[in-house]
Amino acid sequence: MDSATYIAIASIITAGLTIAIGSVGPALGEGRAVATALTSVAQQPDAAATITRTLFVGLAMIESVAIYCFVVSMILIFANPFWNSAVAAAAAGH
Amino acid sequence: MDSATYIAIASIITAGLTIAIGSVGPALGEGRAVATALTSVAQQPDAAATITRTLFVGLAMIESVAIYCFVVSMILIFANPFWNSAVAAAAAGH
Amino acid sequence: MDSATYIAIASIITAGLTIAIGSVGPALGEGRAVATALTSVAQQPDAAATITRTLFVGLAMIESVAIYCFVVSMILIFANPFWNSAVAAAAAGH
Amino acid sequence: MDSATYIAIASIITAGLTIAIGSVGPALGEGRAVATALTSVAQQPDAAATITRTLFVGLAMIESVAIYCFVVSMILIFANPFWNSAVAAAAAGH
Amino acid sequence: MDSATYIAIASIITAGLTIAIGSVGPALGEGRAVATALTSVAQQPDAAATITRTLFVGLAMIESVAIYCFVVSMILIFANPFWNSAVAAAAAGH
Amino acid sequence: MDSATYIAIASIITAGLTIAIGSVGPALGEGRAVATALTSVAQQPDAAATITRTLFVGLAMIESVAIYCFVVSMILIFANPFWNSAVAAAAAGH
Amino acid sequence: MDSATYIAIASIITAGLTIAIGSVGPALGEGRAVATALTSVAQQPDAAATITRTLFVGLAMIESVAIYCFVVSMILIFANPFWNSAVAAAAAGH
Amino acid sequence: MDSATYIAIASIITAGLTIAIGSVGPALGEGRAVATALTSVAQQPDAAATITRTLFVGLAMIESVAIYCFVVSMILIFANPFWNSAVAAAAAGH
Amino acid sequence: MDSATYIAIASIITAGLTIAIGSVGPALGEGRAVATALTSVAQQPDAAATITRTLFVGLAMIESVAIYCFVVSMILIFANPFWNSAVAAAAAGH
Amino acid sequence: MDSATYIAIASIITAGLTIAIGSVGPALGEGRAVATALTSVAQQPDAAATITRTLFVGLAMIESVAIYCFVVSMILIFANPFWNSAVAAAAAGH
Amino acid sequence: MDSATYIAIASIITAGLTIAIGSVGPALGEGRAVATALTSVAQQPDAAATITRTLFVGLAMIESVAIYCFVVSMILIFANPFWNSAVAAAAAGH
Amino acid sequence: MDSATYIAIASIITAGLTIAIGSVGPALGEGRAVATALTSVAQQPDAAATITRTLFVGLAMIESVAIYCFVVSMILIFANPFWNSAVAAAAAGH
Amino acid sequence: MDSATYIAIASIITAGLTIAIGSVGPALGEGRAVATALTSVAQQPDAAATITRTLFVGLAMIESVAIYCFVVSMILIFANPFWNSAVAAAAAGH
Amino acid sequence: MDSATYIAIASIITAGLTIAIGSVGPALGEGRAVATALTSVAQQPDAAATITRTLFVGLAMIESVAIYCFVVSMILIFANPFWNSAVAAAAAGH
Repeated sequence: MDSATYIAIASIITAGLTIAIGSVGPALGEGRAVATALTSVAQQPDAAATITRTLFVGLAMIESVAIYCFVVSMILIFANPFWNSAVAAAAAGH
Repeated sequence: MDSATYIAIASIITAGLTIAIGSVGPALGEGRAVATALTSVAQQPDAAATITRTLFVGLAMIESVAIYCFVVSMILIFANPFWNSAVAAAAAGH
Repeated sequence: MDSATYIAIASIITAGLTIAIGSVGPALGEGRAVATALTSVAQQPDAAATITRTLFVGLAMIESVAIYCFVVSMILIFANPFWNSAVAAAAAGH
Repeated sequence: MDSATYIAIASIITAGLTIAIGSVGPALGEGRAVATALTSVAQQPDAAATITRTLFVGLAMIESVAIYCFVVSMILIFANPFWNSAVAAAAAGH
Repeated sequence: MDSATYIAIASIITAGLTIAIGSVGPALGEGRAVATALTSVAQQPDAAATITRTLFVGLAMIESVAIYCFVVSMILIFANPFWNSAVAAAAAGH
Repeated sequence: MDSATYIAIASIITAGLTIAIGSVGPALGEGRAVATALTSVAQQPDAAATITRTLFVGLAMIESVAIYCFVVSMILIFANPFWNSAVAAAAAGH
Repeated sequence: MDSATYIAIASIITAGLTIAIGSVGPALGEGRAVATALTSVAQQPDAAATITRTLFVGLAMIESVAIYCFVVSMILIFANPFWNSAVAAAAAGH
Repeated sequence: MDSATYIAIASIITAGLTIAIGSVGPALGEGRAVATALTSVAQQPDAAATITRTLFVGLAMIESVAIYCFVVSMILIFANPFWNSAVAAAAAGH
Repeated sequence: MDSATYIAIASIITAGLTIAIGSVGPALGEGRAVATALTSVAQQPDAAATITRTLFVGLAMIESVAIYCFVVSMILIFANPFWNSAVAAAAAGH
Repeated sequence: MDSATYIAIASIITAGLTIAIGSVGPALGEGRAVATALTSVAQQPDAAATITRTLFVGLAMIESVAIYCFVVSMILIFANPFWNSAVAAAAAGH
Repeated sequence: MDSATYIAIASIITAGLTIAIGSVGPALGEGRAVATALTSVAQQPDAAATITRTLFVGLAMIESVAIYCFVVSMILIFANPFWNSAVAAAAAGH
Repeated sequence: MDSATYIAIASIITAGLTIAIGSVGPALGEGRAVATALTSVAQQPDAAATITRTLFVGLAMIESVAIYCFVVSMILIFANPFWNSAVAAAAAGH
Repeated sequence: MDSATYIAIASIITAGLTIAIGSVGPALGEGRAVATALTSVAQQPDAAATITRTLFVGLAMIESVAIYCFVVSMILIFANPFWNSAVAAAAAGH
Repeated sequence: MDSATYIAIASIITAGLTIAIGSVGPALGEGRAVATALTSVAQQPDAAATITRTLFVGLAMIESVAIYCFVVSMILIFANPFWNSAVAAAAAGH
């Protein structure tokens, strides 16, 4: 088994775990934010516009954390500099 | 056991764990959001339209996190660049 | 023990754990949603139709997460591309 | 120890753990749903019919998650394609 | 140590852990259901018949999950197809 | 160390852990049921007969889960088919 | 180190862990039951007789789970069939 | 290192862990019982006699679980049948 | 490294962990008991004598569990029968 | 496998885990902050401007913690001084 | 590496972990006791003397558990009988 | 693999985990602080100035803990004295 | 690697973990105590003197537990008797 | 790999984990203290001076625990006596 294989395996496992673990927090946080938004709308329907707008800004902030994880996961699969380096080395007759 | 086998095993295990772990957060978050939506509708039936609309937007945001995990899981099974590279290397008489 | 056996073992273990771990979140989330639906119906029987309809949409969203896991589990058992590749290689006199 | 034995061991352990871990979520979720159903009936006896009907639909949804696990567990014990393949290979004088 | 022994050990450990882990969820879920049933009866004695009937249906649903685990555990001890296969192989002069 | 010893060790450890882990859930569930029964009796002494009867049925259901574990534990110690098979094999001059 | 020693070590460790882990659930459950009994007596002193009687029945049920663990622990130390078998085998000039 | 040493080490570690783990549940349970006893006495000083008597019976039940652990721990240190057997064997010129 | 050293190491580690783990439960339990005692005194200063007396009895019961752990810890350090036996054996020119 | 490969693997795994674990806290914290912001707006719509402004400052503070993790993760992938050093050493004919 | 070194390492690690783990429970318990003391004083300033006195007795009891851990930790570092024995053996030309 | 590589790997892993684990506490703490700030502003808009000022001081204190972790993480990556020492040793023809 | 190195490594790791783990409990306990102190002062400003004095005594008690850990940590780094002994042995030409 | 390298690795890992784990407790404790300070100011604006002063004293106490961890972490990186000793030994031609 050559170096590239080790790097491939590490990349696969890390890419999956990154988005898997990274989805727990945002999903729970968004669930909480949405839940209180619904409670608030039911309690004060007149403020629905303000509540909805604040909710969307907040969801965007929380989603951004999940997107960080997704970005790292995608980088590890499709734009992995270590893998590129290993493949280049192998192609150069390392 | 050649390199491709190691990569296949890592891909199988990671694909399963990614969607498995990644389903915990969204499921709990959606459950919470749906639960408060129901409470809110029961408390303020007149705002049902606003509540339902906000709920669906929120569920879509939370579901998107689960879909990130599902996408990574599918990529690892059906469009795995490392596996393709290993298979190509093996076919090239590596 | 040849490559196919390793892949088979990894597939078996992953298929089971995927649906096992993946059932925890949806089951708890659905339990919560159903529970509040019942509370809401008891509190506001007049809104039962709206509540039930919202509940079913929500349950479908949550169930979809469990179904992702079930799909990955079934793919790993019955339509595993890595296993097919290993069996084909073995049949080709690898 | 031949390949079939390894697959048998993995299948045994996975089949047990799948249904064991997979029973935690549904059991807790159903317990919660039944509990609130009882509270709701006590609070609003007139809505007992609606509550009971909604409860049964909800329990069926939650039970379905446990049944996914049971199905995978049974497949691994009695209709395991990997085991069949290994036994066939052994019978073929592997 | 031959193959049958490995399978026997795996079956023993899995059978015990399956029913052990699988008993946690149902026991807690049933405890919760019974607890709220008692609260509900105390709060609304007139609805005792409905509450008790709903409780028994719910307990049966929850108990079914525990019985899945017990069934798998018994199958692994007394009707284990892998063990039968290994014993048959040993008897055939494997 | 022969096969029978391995099976004996696995049986000892599993028998103990089965009843140990399996006692957590039922004990907590029964504690909760008894606790609410006491609260309910104090709140509605007139319904003591109904409450007590419902409590005993519920405790029996929960206790049944603990008894499943105890049965498996006893089977592993005193009626273990794998151990009997190994002892018979050893006696047959294996 | 002969077989009997391995069995002795497994029995010692399992006996201790069985009663140790098995004491957590019953102790917490009994603590909860006693606690609510005290609250109930303080709230409704007239029902003290009924409460105390129900408490003792409940404690007996919970204690029975702890006693299952204690019985298994004692069996493993003083009436262990596997140890007896190993000692007999050693005495027979194994 | 002879057999007796292994048994001694297992006995030491198990004896300590048994009482250590086994003390968590009873201590928490007793803390809860005492706490509610104090609340109840403060709420209903006239029932102090009944409360105190019920408390002592309950504490005795909970303490009994801790004493099971202490007994097993002491047996493992001072009356360990496996250790006695090993020492006797060593003395007999094993 | 001779037998006595192994026994010494096991005794050191176990002695420390026993009192360390064993201190968690009693400390939390006593903290809870003291806390409710203070609340109760503030709520019903007239019953301070009864509350304080009940508190001290309860603290003694909880402390006894911590003392069991301390006793086992001290026995393992200063009156360890296995260590004495090993030292005696070493002195006897084992 | 040379030094650079080890460093690459460590960098990949660490980069993924850093952002994955580091996303849990901020996501939950932001979810909580957004949730109470919505509740507060619904309760006091007149203070919406102050609440929103305070919320954004707070979200920025919390997001900064997630960004620390993202920065470290990016540094490890794209500006890793250890990797650069290893690559330079390899290029220098190490 | 001689016996004394192993004993030294075990003593160092155990001494640190004993006080580290042993500090969690008492610190939380004391925090809870102090917290309720402050609440009680604020609620009933006239009973401040009784509350403070009861608090100090309770803190002493809880602190005693932490001191058990500190004592064992100090004994392991400065008065370790196993270390003394090993040093004496080494000095005696072991 | 030389010493510098080991130190590099340890530095990479530790740098990532330090900021990852170290971000959980501050993020949750800040989330809580911001959340109550919002509640307080909504409840007492007149005290918004005092609340905001106190909030910022508190956030700074909590953020300082996260910054400790970030500083240690940066030191380990860019100003690691052990790495510098190893590189110097390697350059000196170690 | 000589004995002194092993002792140094054990001392370094233990010193860090001791203060790290040992800081969790006191920090949470002090946070709780300070929090209730603030609530109490706000509720009863007239008793601020008594509350503050009681708070400081309580904080000192809780801080003492953290200081135990810090002392053990410092002893392990700067006044470690085992390290001194190992260094002396090495200096003596061990 | 020489002794100094092992000590360097242990120091790096411990330094990072010490401040990482050690930041969880203080951050949560400070978050709680700040949160209640804000609630208290909103509830009793007149006592803002006293509350703020008490808050700062409390934050200082909690921060001190985090600083203990930071100090130990810095000592391990920049003033590590074991590292200095190892470097001196290596310089002395060990």
